[in-house]
Amino acid sequence: MIYLDSAATSYYRPDSVALAVADAVRHMGNSSRGIHDAALDASRTIYQVREKLGEMFGCGPSQIAFASNVTESLNTALCGLLRPGDHVVTTVLEHNSVLRPLYRLEQQGVELSIAGCDTLGTVCPEDIQALFRPNTRAVVCTHASNLTGNLMDIRRIGKAAHERGILMIVDGAQTAGIFPVDLRKDHVDVFCFTGHKSLLGPQGTGGMAVRQGLLIEPLKVGGSGIKTFEKEQPEQMPEVLEAGTLNGHGIAGLGAGIDYISSKGMDKLKEKELCLAEMFYERVIQIPEVKVYGSFTTKQRAPIVSLNIKELPSGEVSSILMEEYDICTRSGGHCAPLMHKAFGTEVQGMVRFSFSSFNTEEQTEQVVKAVKEIAEER
Amino acid sequence: MIYLDSAATSYYRPDSVALAVADAVRHMGNSSRGIHDAALDASRTIYQVREKLGEMFGCGPSQIAFASNVTESLNTALCGLLRPGDHVVTTVLEHNSVLRPLYRLEQQGVELSIAGCDTLGTVCPEDIQALFRPNTRAVVCTHASNLTGNLMDIRRIGKAAHERGILMIVDGAQTAGIFPVDLRKDHVDVFCFTGHKSLLGPQGTGGMAVRQGLLIEPLKVGGSGIKTFEKEQPEQMPEVLEAGTLNGHGIAGLGAGIDYISSKGMDKLKEKELCLAEMFYERVIQIPEVKVYGSFTTKQRAPIVSLNIKELPSGEVSSILMEEYDICTRSGGHCAPLMHKAFGTEVQGMVRFSFSSFNTEEQTEQVVKAVKEIAEER
Repeated sequence: MIYLDSAATSYYRPDSVALAVADAVRHMGNSSRGIHDAALDASRTIYQVREKLGEMFGCGPSQIAFASNVTESLNTALCGLLRPGDHVVTTVLEHNSVLRPLYRLEQQGVELSIAGCDTLGTVCPEDIQALFRPNTRAVVCTHASNLTGNLMDIRRIGKAAHERGILMIVDGAQTAGIFPVDLRKDHVDVFCFTGHKSLLGPQGTGGMAVRQGLLIEPLKVGGSGIKTFEKEQPEQMPEVLEAGTLNGHGIAGLGAGIDYISSKGMDKLKEKELCLAEMFYERVIQIPEVKVYGSFTTKQRAPIVSLNIKELPSGEVSSILMEEYDICTRSGGHCAPLMHKAFGTEVQGMVRFSFSSFNTEEQTEQVVKAVKEIAEER
Repeated sequence: MIYLDSAATSYYRPDSVALAVADAVRHMGNSSRGIHDAALDASRTIYQVREKLGEMFGCGPSQIAFASNVTESLNTALCGLLRPGDHVVTTVLEHNSVLRPLYRLEQQGVELSIAGCDTLGTVCPEDIQALFRPNTRAVVCTHASNLTGNLMDIRRIGKAAHERGILMIVDGAQTAGIFPVDLRKDHVDVFCFTGHKSLLGPQGTGGMAVRQGLLIEPLKVGGSGIKTFEKEQPEQMPEVLEAGTLNGHGIAGLGAGIDYISSKGMDKLKEKELCLAEMFYERVIQIPEVKVYGSFTTKQRAPIVSLNIKELPSGEVSSILMEEYDICTRSGGHCAPLMHKAFGTEVQGMVRFSFSSFNTEEQTEQVVKAVKEIAEER
């Protein structure tokens, strides 16, 4: 089987991740819920992963709050920072994990503006700035489109936002683990990440890196292991955003994923993934029946190539790739409705090929061959 | 090491749980996010665990919604069902995972009444009923106190609530996996559970069993893998309550935990746990310096014994047990502030001993001996 759906979830991982999770399931107690060895073991492990993530995102360990996935982080950031009367700017590149919370907030009185894109699916930072109003509270945008792979220039957008006192919230679902981010240098207030994609951790992990001093009203409240007799969730980070028992077992696996990335070098892994994606792109654009979406003149992109073959429904192409070639891709809408509207692919969808550093050139050649055969034979 | 903190999180588990999680980390794709084998493998595994849980809680598989822990389930149920102007009844037995969401809802205009307890920490169902008002929307109560272990008669309370058209929401953190619950027979609308305690699954798992036909407004919205072009989260269960990528890896482990319980028999495991707790109780009440909290004349209890030794701070006793006897317990407030107020133990806290079916009589004897020595020597 050739797995090319790493933008949905990692499949290839260093085995140290599975081993770390299994080890944690066997030995770990409940973090912050006791003073015995098993509980302290949990606290220590989780703290170490906070340190690793803090280093990766340019903040202190306490500014990392864990969540079950990036959707939870985004809901927390958006619902916890936006109030009726606030204005928020986003883009057509966004995933439903950004759009749906915003639509819901809009019904509660938050004003929403959505920046459009050009024919390649690129959003110009100036178009975001042009939407700023006196009551703009935040910009929320993806770091990379989950459909085209193209990165947004978050530093430029963040700088413009900060000059106007506007918060910058970034959806890093497709970039955390391959593109470094520094909250300070990149002018980001909240960077939301998932653990099970490029960070190579297990499902059920993710979180947010929060700029020091920013208070986010929590989405969930409950047991905090500290200040039991207070009616409200303690305000300190990270406890304020982490009600209930953390997924310590998963977080241990996430730590192993990050260790692997550090040992190999994030840049090297990214380079390999981008090489494979570029190789794939350069081959498939030579097939006349294939239409590829997005901009490929830049290295500022995630290792994603989305395409269609003639008018074939994307689901049909994905099925043929699976059934006849044992190749895993993703088809359909990819939870990015406005991008499909921009490209006019609401009905057809797209077939997405997303690469991991564990994929090989040989696999990529095979996939090109499969796409070519489908294009010629159907 | 003797672990007696299973009410916080399981430490002893069948090894099949760790193996199932590791296997899933190695082979599982993203459930409901593709039509290839890895994704279908995830969907199948997760569906099977829904079936097992549905069987355990008397509902169909689609009425099981997963969450990262019971705190998330409770926040979802409470915030998703209560609106300003509604009245809700709860009890002093509750954990902060019930109380803190309710206090927050109270600030938003929900009316809150809290039923008190007797000197043994028992809440009389009639005292709950006596608090019903014309605008009472829900009763929310724990199935078993995490401090005394005593069960509430949820069937009787649920029946009384349903006769008045009031919803019954149960916090099953301490009972899911050892006490059977049937949504229909027990008159429960929402049963919230955690996966990492008596269900023996990994951390990061949990969820809620929701009575067919009950619509709960989701806490989080986002990608659903279906109906991508709709602005709102799809209303169907379980998708409505499961935005974002599920913790498929953890859920696979939870399935292994449930399989273990089924193979051994839930009743037999409970019997063993209760025997150990009872044995411990009967020995320690003979120590004059020890004060035990809760009612022990009933079998309707979770395997929990909380006590204090003279006026010794509970944290000090817990530390001695760890450092000098290698025994893991939990001390302090246990996130149950109103219970401590009722018992007058806000400052001292309590030392909680919670048993698993993996504990042994020999361990229990050793722990009794340790408690006795501390009582005599300090």
